[in-house]
Amino acid sequence: MRLILVGFGVVARSLTDILTVRKQELLERYGMHPRVVAIVDKGGSVLNPKGLDLDEVRRVKSEFGTVAETPEYGSKRTSAVAIIDEVDAEVVVEATPTNLETGEPGMTHIETALKAGRHVVTVNKGPLALALPALMEMAAYNCAYLRFSGTVGGGTPILDFGRKCLTSDKILSIEGILNGTTNYMLTEMDKLGLTFEEALKAAQEKGYAEANPALDVDGWDAAAKVTIMANWLTGREITLKDVSVKGIRDVKPADLKNAAKQGGAVKLIGRIGDGEDDISVAPTLVKRDDPICIGGTLNAVRFHSEFAGNEIIIGKGAGGPETASAVLRDLLEIRERMSVN
Amino acid sequence: MRLILVGFGVVARSLTDILTVRKQELLERYGMHPRVVAIVDKGGSVLNPKGLDLDEVRRVKSEFGTVAETPEYGSKRTSAVAIIDEVDAEVVVEATPTNLETGEPGMTHIETALKAGRHVVTVNKGPLALALPALMEMAAYNCAYLRFSGTVGGGTPILDFGRKCLTSDKILSIEGILNGTTNYMLTEMDKLGLTFEEALKAAQEKGYAEANPALDVDGWDAAAKVTIMANWLTGREITLKDVSVKGIRDVKPADLKNAAKQGGAVKLIGRIGDGEDDISVAPTLVKRDDPICIGGTLNAVRFHSEFAGNEIIIGKGAGGPETASAVLRDLLEIRERMSVN
Repeated sequence: MRLILVGFGVVARSLTDILTVRKQELLERYGMHPRVVAIVDKGGSVLNPKGLDLDEVRRVKSEFGTVAETPEYGSKRTSAVAIIDEVDAEVVVEATPTNLETGEPGMTHIETALKAGRHVVTVNKGPLALALPALMEMAAYNCAYLRFSGTVGGGTPILDFGRKCLTSDKILSIEGILNGTTNYMLTEMDKLGLTFEEALKAAQEKGYAEANPALDVDGWDAAAKVTIMANWLTGREITLKDVSVKGIRDVKPADLKNAAKQGGAVKLIGRIGDGEDDISVAPTLVKRDDPICIGGTLNAVRFHSEFAGNEIIIGKGAGGPETASAVLRDLLEIRERMSVN
Repeated sequence: MRLILVGFGVVARSLTDILTVRKQELLERYGMHPRVVAIVDKGGSVLNPKGLDLDEVRRVKSEFGTVAETPEYGSKRTSAVAIIDEVDAEVVVEATPTNLETGEPGMTHIETALKAGRHVVTVNKGPLALALPALMEMAAYNCAYLRFSGTVGGGTPILDFGRKCLTSDKILSIEGILNGTTNYMLTEMDKLGLTFEEALKAAQEKGYAEANPALDVDGWDAAAKVTIMANWLTGREITLKDVSVKGIRDVKPADLKNAAKQGGAVKLIGRIGDGEDDISVAPTLVKRDDPICIGGTLNAVRFHSEFAGNEIIIGKGAGGPETASAVLRDLLEIRERMSVN
């Protein structure tokens, strides 16, 4: 299985780590022999049809900030589109940063790969939140698989759980905490009586929140995940604009005190209800004895299914190695499906 | 897909409910057309190679207490072994009561079915706890599938989660609350200061505990589940005797008070650790802010995996319709595998 990695940030680098460490085991246990034949980052690219030396590429990346400086195979050429189109490979791993306004550059990368008949594994929520129904159709039309386990829950297999473990059942509704940053902030506000601004500063100091925290605190990251779950797990064909979104900027210490008085806490809950339009992200009162009322940066999702009842899955929602393990899961699934056909 | 149901208690009856209600959907969505051709209970059997009228059989069972009274196709013949051996069917659903001393009569039913080349779906923990390694070998030898999703967590897909969602990872350890009855009792002892005896009485009044509660309170039910998980999810070949088992009989109100002082609660925890022999069930102090520290009759299991980190799954651990949904999940998996080969 030949791979092109587009974007070489924390997740993609962790993936190359895992592929190196588990090389022998992947071969023995799954008959999988992955070769990374191209990597593109902002500064350029590196290309070797026989498979790159991943240790060397990682070393170059950490020393020079770009894979372009790799001796022999490195190049300043930065056209990911051309590389996706021209380099022979079965799978493109798209791991550029999420952009929820245009979906770019991930959108173009994914479309190019699918049109070239390449399978795609992505951890980029942007293109999916903006156009998942169209991308799924494009994948089906080109007989390619599009997989994105790492976009919801990081390494926690929330999408796989819904899809594989509840296949024989019918998911009636889904709700949960999908954003670790805001959950950390709300937990701190609750415990220490902080204001929104103080909690944001604390999250930024801990490295949980970006300098521009809008994606998290205004609810858009959670809304992107809700969009992906609604498409993948409930068969709805929706995009980000179909989600009613409210972030946590207006949550006051007094709201948390009121919630506490009622035996609960305020959590940013993403929800896919029974009704066609009942899809939202909003601060919500959750009872403390509800198992999804978790603290810190964890994610927690409850599936309400017709026959098996309520099921909850809790795990870390982010992290490089964790998310990379989700990418590997997708690659293995694609490999298995390729070998069946 | 032709089915023989052995045992016609709550779970098997719920299964026939689901098969009736979802008949059309199973055909359209999965191409599955299940026909129950035989049912055996303690009083006799009912047999129709063309497929039984499940509504009628359920009605007869609830009126007369046995399917033997079904007009036309009913019979006082009670030899499940002969029926498993002689009646043409692809799958035997074994749903007789759990016996952790001899595994019977389930053990003989399962062995007979596998030797006849029939796939087996069981919700009976007895044979699995006593002989899972041997039964797996027997299934492989006879090219038959042996599945048992419903034995751990009821409808909550704990085994499937471990197997399907963490395939690409390596499970390092597993721990959790696996028995709803004892969890209810410990929750009540903690909340209301009850003694063990008082909590047992409360659980019996609620219908959570059997007249003979030994299986639950002495930890054997949890130990059977631990045995099944160790075999299925961590590749160990163990049986019930390899588990160190301690129940909750000796838990005193003072222990719970001490635990509370340390910010925790006492829970009956089943555990599969890193070491070969580190497999146990015992009352254990769990911190209150640990997501597996749940109350009531719920089950909660934490998987610690090498790459994806800690993942927790929480759900109802029992219930007729829930467990029947796990049986259906197994049937669908078998159907899918049959069609691939």
